[in-house]
Amino acid sequence: MSLTRTVELEGHIIDSGRMQQCFTAVMDLGGSFEVEEFNVGKNEDEASYCQLSVSADDEATLQGILHELHQNGAVLRDPPNVTLEPAPADQVVPSGFYSTTNHPTEVRYDDEWIPVEHIEMDCALVVEPEGSPEGGPRAYTKVLNAIDEGDLVATDESGIRVKPPERPRGSDGPFGFMQGGISAERPSESTIRQIAEELAETKSNGGNVLVVAGPAVIHSGAGDALAELVRKGYIDAISAGNGFATHDLERSIYGTSLGMNVETLEHPRKGHKHHIWSISEVIRAGGIEAAVEKGVITEGVMYECVRNDVPYVLAGSIRDDGPLPDTITDAVEAQDAIREQAREADLVLMLATLLHSVAVGNCLPSTTKTVCVDINPATVTQLLDRGSAQAVGMVTDIGTFVPTLAEFVLEAGD
Amino acid sequence: MSLTRTVELEGHIIDSGRMQQCFTAVMDLGGSFEVEEFNVGKNEDEASYCQLSVSADDEATLQGILHELHQNGAVLRDPPNVTLEPAPADQVVPSGFYSTTNHPTEVRYDDEWIPVEHIEMDCALVVEPEGSPEGGPRAYTKVLNAIDEGDLVATDESGIRVKPPERPRGSDGPFGFMQGGISAERPSESTIRQIAEELAETKSNGGNVLVVAGPAVIHSGAGDALAELVRKGYIDAISAGNGFATHDLERSIYGTSLGMNVETLEHPRKGHKHHIWSISEVIRAGGIEAAVEKGVITEGVMYECVRNDVPYVLAGSIRDDGPLPDTITDAVEAQDAIREQAREADLVLMLATLLHSVAVGNCLPSTTKTVCVDINPATVTQLLDRGSAQAVGMVTDIGTFVPTLAEFVLEAGD
Amino acid sequence: MSLTRTVELEGHIIDSGRMQQCFTAVMDLGGSFEVEEFNVGKNEDEASYCQLSVSADDEATLQGILHELHQNGAVLRDPPNVTLEPAPADQVVPSGFYSTTNHPTEVRYDDEWIPVEHIEMDCALVVEPEGSPEGGPRAYTKVLNAIDEGDLVATDESGIRVKPPERPRGSDGPFGFMQGGISAERPSESTIRQIAEELAETKSNGGNVLVVAGPAVIHSGAGDALAELVRKGYIDAISAGNGFATHDLERSIYGTSLGMNVETLEHPRKGHKHHIWSISEVIRAGGIEAAVEKGVITEGVMYECVRNDVPYVLAGSIRDDGPLPDTITDAVEAQDAIREQAREADLVLMLATLLHSVAVGNCLPSTTKTVCVDINPATVTQLLDRGSAQAVGMVTDIGTFVPTLAEFVLEAGD
Amino acid sequence: MSLTRTVELEGHIIDSGRMQQCFTAVMDLGGSFEVEEFNVGKNEDEASYCQLSVSADDEATLQGILHELHQNGAVLRDPPNVTLEPAPADQVVPSGFYSTTNHPTEVRYDDEWIPVEHIEMDCALVVEPEGSPEGGPRAYTKVLNAIDEGDLVATDESGIRVKPPERPRGSDGPFGFMQGGISAERPSESTIRQIAEELAETKSNGGNVLVVAGPAVIHSGAGDALAELVRKGYIDAISAGNGFATHDLERSIYGTSLGMNVETLEHPRKGHKHHIWSISEVIRAGGIEAAVEKGVITEGVMYECVRNDVPYVLAGSIRDDGPLPDTITDAVEAQDAIREQAREADLVLMLATLLHSVAVGNCLPSTTKTVCVDINPATVTQLLDRGSAQAVGMVTDIGTFVPTLAEFVLEAGD
Repeated sequence: MSLTRTVELEGHIIDSGRMQQCFTAVMDLGGSFEVEEFNVGKNEDEASYCQLSVSADDEATLQGILHELHQNGAVLRDPPNVTLEPAPADQVVPSGFYSTTNHPTEVRYDDEWIPVEHIEMDCALVVEPEGSPEGGPRAYTKVLNAIDEGDLVATDESGIRVKPPERPRGSDGPFGFMQGGISAERPSESTIRQIAEELAETKSNGGNVLVVAGPAVIHSGAGDALAELVRKGYIDAISAGNGFATHDLERSIYGTSLGMNVETLEHPRKGHKHHIWSISEVIRAGGIEAAVEKGVITEGVMYECVRNDVPYVLAGSIRDDGPLPDTITDAVEAQDAIREQAREADLVLMLATLLHSVAVGNCLPSTTKTVCVDINPATVTQLLDRGSAQAVGMVTDIGTFVPTLAEFVLEAGD
Repeated sequence: MSLTRTVELEGHIIDSGRMQQCFTAVMDLGGSFEVEEFNVGKNEDEASYCQLSVSADDEATLQGILHELHQNGAVLRDPPNVTLEPAPADQVVPSGFYSTTNHPTEVRYDDEWIPVEHIEMDCALVVEPEGSPEGGPRAYTKVLNAIDEGDLVATDESGIRVKPPERPRGSDGPFGFMQGGISAERPSESTIRQIAEELAETKSNGGNVLVVAGPAVIHSGAGDALAELVRKGYIDAISAGNGFATHDLERSIYGTSLGMNVETLEHPRKGHKHHIWSISEVIRAGGIEAAVEKGVITEGVMYECVRNDVPYVLAGSIRDDGPLPDTITDAVEAQDAIREQAREADLVLMLATLLHSVAVGNCLPSTTKTVCVDINPATVTQLLDRGSAQAVGMVTDIGTFVPTLAEFVLEAGD
Repeated sequence: MSLTRTVELEGHIIDSGRMQQCFTAVMDLGGSFEVEEFNVGKNEDEASYCQLSVSADDEATLQGILHELHQNGAVLRDPPNVTLEPAPADQVVPSGFYSTTNHPTEVRYDDEWIPVEHIEMDCALVVEPEGSPEGGPRAYTKVLNAIDEGDLVATDESGIRVKPPERPRGSDGPFGFMQGGISAERPSESTIRQIAEELAETKSNGGNVLVVAGPAVIHSGAGDALAELVRKGYIDAISAGNGFATHDLERSIYGTSLGMNVETLEHPRKGHKHHIWSISEVIRAGGIEAAVEKGVITEGVMYECVRNDVPYVLAGSIRDDGPLPDTITDAVEAQDAIREQAREADLVLMLATLLHSVAVGNCLPSTTKTVCVDINPATVTQLLDRGSAQAVGMVTDIGTFVPTLAEFVLEAGD
Repeated sequence: MSLTRTVELEGHIIDSGRMQQCFTAVMDLGGSFEVEEFNVGKNEDEASYCQLSVSADDEATLQGILHELHQNGAVLRDPPNVTLEPAPADQVVPSGFYSTTNHPTEVRYDDEWIPVEHIEMDCALVVEPEGSPEGGPRAYTKVLNAIDEGDLVATDESGIRVKPPERPRGSDGPFGFMQGGISAERPSESTIRQIAEELAETKSNGGNVLVVAGPAVIHSGAGDALAELVRKGYIDAISAGNGFATHDLERSIYGTSLGMNVETLEHPRKGHKHHIWSISEVIRAGGIEAAVEKGVITEGVMYECVRNDVPYVLAGSIRDDGPLPDTITDAVEAQDAIREQAREADLVLMLATLLHSVAVGNCLPSTTKTVCVDINPATVTQLLDRGSAQAVGMVTDIGTFVPTLAEFVLEAGD
């Protein structure tokens, strides 16, 4: 073993699992380590500190290990300044560019650690030496397609440090710390009550609640409950797709969702007519807002959004019918709109949609609280598996979840 | 094609799909048919009649086809009497014995059609020539392990006719006719309301309601709602296993289910101690009824069953801990106990258990109404795929389903 | 019942289930019917004929019933010409426009039935009175967003007839007729062999094979087998997304998929670096074709597509990273590209992607053979549930399916 | 905080996650801790040591915390001898008895640590003071239903220590350490190859391979491959149920499984006749072994078991038809038979059965290697979630898995 580097870890590194991750990463990737110094936090409130020297036979292996340690918050001892290289062309990053995590991050520039703005994973990290309002350096993330020629892009991990989430002290309510799996066997109503309390508390603290909703919310008859939460001011933004909006609008126009009356369950036949007719009515009216104003749409989630100035993003997809005039058909434009929503959010409810939840989740820092609800356990697992510090997953029926949530939120909010 | 046989079909054979089944069976199995006579019902209330001659190249193929036609209610023209052979030994049936369907069935004996009692699929059909109270012939099903030496067992389809379910005239409420699939996207609360109305109506008509319940009913926090339905007299019998009962009893003794407090969600750690301790407390008390009497058990589903004389069957399984003294560990004995419950039932609610639902379902005639609820669509599909005439499946969360059902039942029952 | 209309059905209307569908539709929707004439096909090769008068209390109910009968191939006796109305503006259809099915369709124009081109569901139906090469009338489908002001759009069902798929005479191989459900318990290798034979036969008949592929094809290690099928000429087109292509390209550049070596399974850590780096390398090269030419990409599915002139569509989505320069980010443009592929296809293999399979499926007529493969039964069920005449679904592991399929195809193709 | 106790942990307590578990358990359960001493292992081969004092407000809380710490291998400093109490009656344990984990365990008796035999979770721990061959003390587990009056049963954790699995040094092949989740997106064939190599290596080391098999193994057409593994000597025991055996026997007698020919896929109709007829043929023959000897059964898994003296346990269940004479219908007897198999096993393959896999898994110590294969991710997750030290889960199609495994095993075994 000829190559060695020394890193430091600090914080609640034992109970947050970071020490374990670092030790096993070294072993998994074929390196070895030596603990040079270790001070354990004496109790639950004291931080621990570990200085670790890591060795490997070749530089590639060592880099692979350091990459893993970096992602778990390890920092090189005596960290250098971040390495920056200008982007050779629009949308083209320098080779070996630093790809961001979704954790709070700082870059070392001019021997100072400066925080990175707009944390989002899988982005480039750009530094503007004189970009801050005060004329000092500024660092932020940029998605590949937004890179401009000449942007100074970080190309190395050595001057960058991330802060992976730490396990909160005390109880974390329904939110499991770094909870990778979920169970279908937790008490449903009690869990919903805790989520409702979290939502009410977020609102009473002035927080921002973003709801990501799939078409099943409407099909399953939960549209009224969601509309009520919008009307009562509990939802600050909706992120959905053409399908969700169309089903909601169809209900207002025809009283059906894909042709089925969601109250009486009558005519459960494949009446696709209503679906495509609803789209054409809204096109004729000139869009959702115009359709509300003209009285074409008189109730539902979209109606309440328009009436209560709750902004919504309808992101297009290749399976859309129509689409509605409000649907953003370009994926990059839609991502940008979703990114704006995500940055505002303090609490995100992902309701019965994998596609839109992944799109929103991709833009979220690991510090945003998220609630993932789906009938398919694989969907919930996939959504929780992003390293969010505080996430709760429920495998449940969206058609009973939303009305129960609304009832509990209104109780908790009183 | 040298071999030909002529069969007759009668009833609502078009809209019940029986004609379609018969035509496709002949084609699938390599035979050919000729429609000799066909009188279509002039309107929705009139029956149709079809006389069909079926041909095949060899006797085996023809028998295979006739078997399928038989199961769809076709009867040989000029049917002979049933062929009977004595069972050569206990539990041993004659070769080529007739294996029953779950549809209403009649056998032709002494040139008369007599109904078969205790309809259940995959059984032998036994005729007692002088077995009826009046000294006439009697026919009934018998499972293989109950066959006694000398039982007269039917060995041929030719003197037997079955009546597959026909699509009910008018609306059939939530119950889909021969519904082979289910959708997770039906409006949840409206569907639960219809089931609740069906349950309340069954009770107000003096019917018998059997609940088949899995451990998830308790885990998911739905135990109180089920206990209330028992206490209020809406449930006539419970079919469950050692796990369901133990979780319910643990809740009464420790306030937890597998160590988790189902209201506060505190201590969600793997506290298996409570589980196995609960079993040992009930063993010590001498069984569930004794534990209720001694005040060891003071609430819950099992408590309400004991207090309200609602009979229960706890069928054992190889994954049981303990087991409880009340658990029937022998599978054949347990099946016999389940069979008794199944024969009484007018409406069966299968709640979040595949094993017990299949066991109960195996004993049900196709005429019993069934409701299947599970979070796993594959479970619901498998349970519905038994040819029950009136079944409704829901892919939903049992933890919200049961409380919502109880609320609607109590409303509907008032 | 004051309102009555008479319709006719013709064909294999019993074994295809159309008679059953029509009878039950009338009853479900609250109407009544009288069979005025019925001639049953005497054997499996003869068509049947039914003349049915349908009554309802009000026009809306009657229209709802007639809509259902229409979709099952019923035609008004003495059908009038199709009703046409000009589109009032671009993308705006007349009120109550006729929304297409995915079945072969004809419109009655100038007292002649003319076939509708480019069958696709949920479209408008446009007639050009002098649009045919010979100057006669021409009819075709148009999606809403392609409607031009002044297009003559059909607004009524009365002059339109559809031909729902009929059950094929004789065996239909692995393809179940109108098979709404699938079973995970069919013999896997035998089923794959039948699909392979179908694929080889389609190719030997000069047919067009379209593969719709999700990222799991690469993750699961099946990329080499698919690349081989492309190289050997068994695949005519690929429909996929940015994720599929990126994983495939990452494998060529780094030997990994999302950071895992798919042969040795080494380094199964979240090495997202490779993923985003691969995208940036291809952006730098100027696209996939350029990357192949520059030697950046030297193997894999995309490589074989470029080398063997197999066209591909990469449709964008809001969850994409990057995206690659080849990805069509606008959903409407991407749909148009997919539509072109779908129209060419004789056999479509949908491999482990719900989003792209639905998008392709939306553009397919019911006469195109489809194979749907996914590990999630709900996905397979949803894809089969579109009324395709010949579809086979398999719930299996794409990582063993594709290699086994390739092996069998190469055997069958020799 | 008035109550305090001091415990010690030793071993690879950081990378095995035990320290993290202990720290978080104290916090989750409302206590506090102070690290009195901590010596970190200097490198990956050196063990660490931690002395921790734990405090809580009341004895119940403290006991709950100590219970969690105990399960993670913490031992009281200056541990006392185990507390023993005689069982008051057959099947009745003393109140507050110690319920075992599935980890290697020792009890302190007469100031010496003695190992506990037959490690199995949720059992009582019995000490025989003079039970060893040499007349010294002996300790072993006993299930509740096997307790005899007067057995000396451990009632306290204080004189007991468990050794939770530690993360192996170096690579652990396909077996993930304490892997709680599984991914459907790992490369399938590469993973199967690693499992095959593990199986071949286990056999070449003289190890014992137990296969737990569900009926889907036969349905899916994988019976021949499993039969070949039995014939070639790779399987030491089979644990299955009445359904598995019946499907296998049906295939030998009729060439079908539930009526479908698994090679030609012909006659895929519900031919339950073959199923129940096969059972009755084997009953007539006097059991499986007799049926093989009489030439009734001439191929298949059960045939190879009989011919090659591979023992099998067929455990009964309430959903069984028949059952076969070889099926053990009593659940407690069946568990005892399964327990014997489980104790012998070095490697367990759980193939497409939840019920039997859970039953076997309940009897396994955490040190036995296990492979869990199912198409349903929830089943695999549930089976892996038992704290087995070395387990690998695959969400795949059993019908392609077993033939591929057999091919790779035969290659690896050469």
